Amino acid sequence: MNVINPIYYAEEGIKQINQFIKTNNPTKIVFLVDENTHEFCLPQIISEIESESEIEILEIESGEVNKNLYVCINLWEALTELKIDRKGLIINIGGGVLTDMGAFVANCYKRGVSFINVPTTLLSMVDASIGGKTGVDLGSHKNQIGNFALPELVMVDPGFLSTLSKEQILSGFAEIIKHGLIADEKYWKEITSLNGIHLEDMDDLIRTSIEIKKEVVSQDFTETGLRKILNFGHTIGHAVESFFLEQGNPILHGEGVAMGMIVESYISVKKGLLSELEYEDIKEYILSLYKKIDIKEDYFKEIFNFMQNDKKNTNNEIKFVLLERIGKAVFDVAVDEDIVKQALRNYNQL
Amino acid sequence: MNVINPIYYAEEGIKQINQFIKTNNPTKIVFLVDENTHEFCLPQIISEIESESEIEILEIESGEVNKNLYVCINLWEALTELKIDRKGLIINIGGGVLTDMGAFVANCYKRGVSFINVPTTLLSMVDASIGGKTGVDLGSHKNQIGNFALPELVMVDPGFLSTLSKEQILSGFAEIIKHGLIADEKYWKEITSLNGIHLEDMDDLIRTSIEIKKEVVSQDFTETGLRKILNFGHTIGHAVESFFLEQGNPILHGEGVAMGMIVESYISVKKGLLSELEYEDIKEYILSLYKKIDIKEDYFKEIFNFMQNDKKNTNNEIKFVLLERIGKAVFDVAVDEDIVKQALRNYNQL
Repeated sequence: MNVINPIYYAEEGIKQINQFIKTNNPTKIVFLVDENTHEFCLPQIISEIESESEIEILEIESGEVNKNLYVCINLWEALTELKIDRKGLIINIGGGVLTDMGAFVANCYKRGVSFINVPTTLLSMVDASIGGKTGVDLGSHKNQIGNFALPELVMVDPGFLSTLSKEQILSGFAEIIKHGLIADEKYWKEITSLNGIHLEDMDDLIRTSIEIKKEVVSQDFTETGLRKILNFGHTIGHAVESFFLEQGNPILHGEGVAMGMIVESYISVKKGLLSELEYEDIKEYILSLYKKIDIKEDYFKEIFNFMQNDKKNTNNEIKFVLLERIGKAVFDVAVDEDIVKQALRNYNQL
Repeated sequence: MNVINPIYYAEEGIKQINQFIKTNNPTKIVFLVDENTHEFCLPQIISEIESESEIEILEIESGEVNKNLYVCINLWEALTELKIDRKGLIINIGGGVLTDMGAFVANCYKRGVSFINVPTTLLSMVDASIGGKTGVDLGSHKNQIGNFALPELVMVDPGFLSTLSKEQILSGFAEIIKHGLIADEKYWKEITSLNGIHLEDMDDLIRTSIEIKKEVVSQDFTETGLRKILNFGHTIGHAVESFFLEQGNPILHGEGVAMGMIVESYISVKKGLLSELEYEDIKEYILSLYKKIDIKEDYFKEIFNFMQNDKKNTNNEIKFVLLERIGKAVFDVAVDEDIVKQALRNYNQL
């Protein structure tokens, strides 16, 4: 099984989508969009698509709260009503919420129809676009339900980034930072020397980040080992994100991950892995970009509850990805609750 | 990818389940049962399982109306609450409704936990136990949502058949008849010479039917071609089953398939494939076992609607599996609506 879907950039992406349509002649093409990509991305894509196939558009509301099974059921009912058959094609245009959910919907509809992902946020370009993970949330449990399914191809067009808010760019940028920290010290140095976040740097960063993620995923598609390192910052980050989602006060994914990377770097120091000096660098850099999140002592119990349900855990132990040094991560490290609490308290006092 | 899951019979099945548990040491074992298998099958199985793992039991209500996404959501929430992790094991004990749905639930929970299927009805032993199809209904659309996922192993214990009603045996027997018709004339002759349906014949029939289905599935796992022949009788049968399910007056799967096989054999004659003589044999034999279903002319429109949404169709054509002769099926035959109507009217007048 080929575990990496082809990724094409900008014009080459549209060319390849047209090629796929020409070769496979889908009975119908369904564009799945949210209100933002419907307005800002779909018109350009539709104008460039060459196809005789009938076109349908399905719109869902943006936002993590809509990444759930009830929205999936609505979409499956809509596909049924539109009489989409197994030779239909679904093109998902949006951020990670939409492409993760759209991929799951396509893969489980009539046991699988072809789909193409067009990530339009920085986060989805550098993260969700590679690796074949699909998923939706179950209550406040992020990506609790999903499977592995590869799109026919992914089109990454950094041109769409100009439609995003500063917060959304910042959210995606956390994954870029993560890629440097877990796998490539040189890349980390490049990122930290950029003096802030600027759209004109993104094209290069996206390509490098995609290459790093591809390299990791191709070695361990179903995440039995190495792929877990991509979860650095996410054990804490996901739990905190789930906590605030449940509170009705959601934070951005990247904000959770940024905070998680600081806390998990601190844990790495406490476990005798990372040096104090490198921890200081990481903390300083992340705090220069991301606002601090207020994690009250009262929240700990609930946050630990979410951590215990983290997909990486087994045997009721909370397993972390930690840094041995900048550019090198280790996975499956069981960490005592006390050390995690200490790390959260330390973050609070920064 | 190995496309056929191992199948073990009776005592060998329990031995292999115990072996799997010993080798993989699951963090927890969840038995998914319905009220019938909870009472009649689970006690025996639990008494024979050798494991130190914590055991949980989840019960769902039996019946096709419960094979839906809302029950899946309940199950996913229950698994989350029980803190089942990726190294958990789910053992599905029941008919096709339960094993199809349990497999889907296991495969999509945290992107996949291991599962074992223990089919307890004749239908699920000879059909759902092989081939890795998972699925749930969407409204009245049968198995509209699902994917492909292989159990670690399947245990077939014909001993459980004694817990079934005559109707349930009859329902499963339709698939045995189908196996003869589509793939093995000798088997058809063996079946029709049995002079009725008797439990003591089942052990042999189950093994032969499983071999036939294995042979077909191993040649075309994802059903792009040959595997479609297993849908003989099902284009009509599923549509009629869906129709009566929607009416709140469900018929058994095998009753729909038995009726479908008569109608589709008639269509095979009309398309110049099957001989009149063989059609007469098929019709006589099936009518000797199954009661006729009353398909009023008023129902046609709705039944065609369901047929149009059949998963095998593409390009808005209704595609049939037809018989060239007894023991040899052909697939992807587009049939004009008028011929289908004529065949339904003919069935009505039998």
